[in-house]
Amino acid sequence: MGEPLARETVEDRQVGLDDQQRTAVIAALDDGDREALRAALGDIHVADLADLIEQLSHEQRRSLIESQGSDLDPELLSELHGPVLAEVLDLIGPREAAAALAQMDSDDAVYVLNEFDDDQQREVLAELAPAERQALQASLAFPEDSAGRLMQRDVVAVPDYWTIGRVLQYLRGEADLPDRFYEIVVVDGENRPVGTVPLDRMLRTHADLAVGLIMGKAEHLVPVDMDQEEVAFLFQQYRLVSAAVVDREGRLAGVITADDIADVIEEEVEEDAMLLGGVAETDIQESVWDTIRLRFTWLFVNLGNAFLAASVIGLFDGTIEKIVALAVLMPIVASMGGNAATQPLTVAVRTLATKELTTANARRVVLKEFWVGAINGSVFALIVGIIGFGWFGDWELGLVLGCAMVINMMVAALVGVLVPIGLDRVGVDPAIASGVFVTTVTDVVGFLAFLGLATLLLL
Amino acid sequence: MGEPLARETVEDRQVGLDDQQRTAVIAALDDGDREALRAALGDIHVADLADLIEQLSHEQRRSLIESQGSDLDPELLSELHGPVLAEVLDLIGPREAAAALAQMDSDDAVYVLNEFDDDQQREVLAELAPAERQALQASLAFPEDSAGRLMQRDVVAVPDYWTIGRVLQYLRGEADLPDRFYEIVVVDGENRPVGTVPLDRMLRTHADLAVGLIMGKAEHLVPVDMDQEEVAFLFQQYRLVSAAVVDREGRLAGVITADDIADVIEEEVEEDAMLLGGVAETDIQESVWDTIRLRFTWLFVNLGNAFLAASVIGLFDGTIEKIVALAVLMPIVASMGGNAATQPLTVAVRTLATKELTTANARRVVLKEFWVGAINGSVFALIVGIIGFGWFGDWELGLVLGCAMVINMMVAALVGVLVPIGLDRVGVDPAIASGVFVTTVTDVVGFLAFLGLATLLLL
Repeated sequence: MGEPLARETVEDRQVGLDDQQRTAVIAALDDGDREALRAALGDIHVADLADLIEQLSHEQRRSLIESQGSDLDPELLSELHGPVLAEVLDLIGPREAAAALAQMDSDDAVYVLNEFDDDQQREVLAELAPAERQALQASLAFPEDSAGRLMQRDVVAVPDYWTIGRVLQYLRGEADLPDRFYEIVVVDGENRPVGTVPLDRMLRTHADLAVGLIMGKAEHLVPVDMDQEEVAFLFQQYRLVSAAVVDREGRLAGVITADDIADVIEEEVEEDAMLLGGVAETDIQESVWDTIRLRFTWLFVNLGNAFLAASVIGLFDGTIEKIVALAVLMPIVASMGGNAATQPLTVAVRTLATKELTTANARRVVLKEFWVGAINGSVFALIVGIIGFGWFGDWELGLVLGCAMVINMMVAALVGVLVPIGLDRVGVDPAIASGVFVTTVTDVVGFLAFLGLATLLLL
Repeated sequence: MGEPLARETVEDRQVGLDDQQRTAVIAALDDGDREALRAALGDIHVADLADLIEQLSHEQRRSLIESQGSDLDPELLSELHGPVLAEVLDLIGPREAAAALAQMDSDDAVYVLNEFDDDQQREVLAELAPAERQALQASLAFPEDSAGRLMQRDVVAVPDYWTIGRVLQYLRGEADLPDRFYEIVVVDGENRPVGTVPLDRMLRTHADLAVGLIMGKAEHLVPVDMDQEEVAFLFQQYRLVSAAVVDREGRLAGVITADDIADVIEEEVEEDAMLLGGVAETDIQESVWDTIRLRFTWLFVNLGNAFLAASVIGLFDGTIEKIVALAVLMPIVASMGGNAATQPLTVAVRTLATKELTTANARRVVLKEFWVGAINGSVFALIVGIIGFGWFGDWELGLVLGCAMVINMMVAALVGVLVPIGLDRVGVDPAIASGVFVTTVTDVVGFLAFLGLATLLLL
């Protein structure tokens, strides 16, 4: 019947793993002490166990998985990610994996299956019952990151003439319902959704009424091939908890629920943030070699950028030889330009993703950025001009520094907002290339403006 | 009864506003044509209308709000954000705002009310019925970004000895239920949650059974003062769709649902991304002046950093005077260091936020970053060394460039991962200060290593 919650229970409650439990588990694993391990794990939630497994070393991970043996919770697999999931699948082998898949919801099973290479997939699928195999193969046929991959195939669907009472009878009798569901889909004779009934409305309505009379319009249907980013947008925009998925003929194919969407939202925002930082999403779980390889590309592109900027400086080596102060001050112009471009860039990438920046306000946003760049540029031009004069006692040098600063910060503002908008218009993810473009431009313009003006005015 | 979905309906379905509708609305607003406006808006969803309003100019916004008059959907207010919400509240005035608040769910009402300043709040609250006023005041007393602010106060709670049948009777009779709910909370005599029953389980169970027999443990209770970031983590980690909120005495205070959490997740990830880019979250909606002010601080901090780096160069002006090639090549070392630090920094900030980087794996992650920095550093040292030699025909210069590169990239890797971990340990948000610290270090170390080695070896 459950204990009433004492005051301490509430306040001490912590979300996820606490350090103490984590330390105890690791100690037990390192000692190879199975009793201590069992005690330390206690009745840990499978999601917390998955997090813990991702934080272990390879040896600790192997020994934890081995200690679980056939007690391994199938749900565990669907809570693991990328390289760690692959490693655990390798540890348990295809037969055990197939047994776990058979117990999962179809969306989770497809997620796990996707981590195998083609040969392994065939091996695992061969272990499954024909009906399950076919269902999973059909799901795998949908493109990655599509609604078809996210959806759960078991759906509660009823015709519109059924009464609430009849639906209740059906639900009480039917064994093959999804684990958890939040609405009932009303379908026509061709299995096409014509409406939905949230469960709370079912409960509030008298049992004699037909569902057709209380259903809402089937407004937010998700096509199977919709990109998961669009699906997430749909859920957020219309505050959905569940949405029916339809195939190309408009027939009910499955259902997507809010708990799957939370991960998608995080994944998509994270992807952009990671791209802007020049790394891949799963970075923390990759091996040293894969990390080196993945990051190398980005660094290599940046090297090209840096040499381009260096070659601009090279054009003015004669000027620098005469006035060494230029070499001292020039990184300031480039650095401020880089920052002045990163700011609008970050905002533009996010607001393009959330559809807050559109054709309706693009002009206004660009104009605003220009003014922000021009005004902040002027203020900083004054500041660095004065400091430059104070440092080297040369007012002409201060003037050149200030002018170069305002030019670079205005260009930076425009480039920072126009490049992502332009990339988005031509269908390229603005996050992927913006950083490279933008810093190249601000470095080149910064050095060119400062050293060029110096050559014209100071020599 | 709803039309069956034709094939085209599914394929043409677009999420959110389409450009055509947006253009039509804007044209109607600019022409002041109310008829055309009504036609263009059609039966637009309130969430899409809110997005559109955020993308309009001030004049267009005013004329759209005025055209809505008393038809204004109260929900619209809860879909608007920051400066735009404030502007719209100003347009409609306190009386209209109070009328809208009275029709909202308590969480949405508090969200809107929070946008008013103290005087306005008092004015609006005065327009409300005493019971509503008190409830809203109580909600406002919770800290911003706490569970208390997110929760909806109307909850379906029943004692454990009620049968399913009795609960159904209660639900059919009760008028004051929340708009939408996904589980029923079972409470003891002191109104403390002892369990929850998901609605699908209610529907599947025979009407004679008591809820106490089918309820799940009240595992994931949310204390009213829990930070919304923790609440979001709880929902994601345990795949919740609804969670009961309890006060300090463990008594049921309200309920939080997944549709509110989607926004929180996005907000929190976005906040970090924005901080790393040196901007505030609501940036796109701020006026030019506010944007200038908000961004100025970050640029000013960066200026300090840039002058520190410049002063390091200043130490070596004698060396640069003799070998101008140093001035040409030195930004390459600094730029590669900056990028080599941004990569681990981005990963560390994200994985600290998602609790993937903990005491269990911090050592391993730092070691990995060190090796990645050392190996990529060595490879790039070789590349730039050869290019430097080829460019200036001086193998000693190439050697100095290569050595400085590997030193700076190793330091960058360590700083990039250690600074965010360190900030997190002392309780500072790693995203807020990491960027500044990290680029300062890589600039200073880069210039110092390159110019210092050059002074030692080349003069």
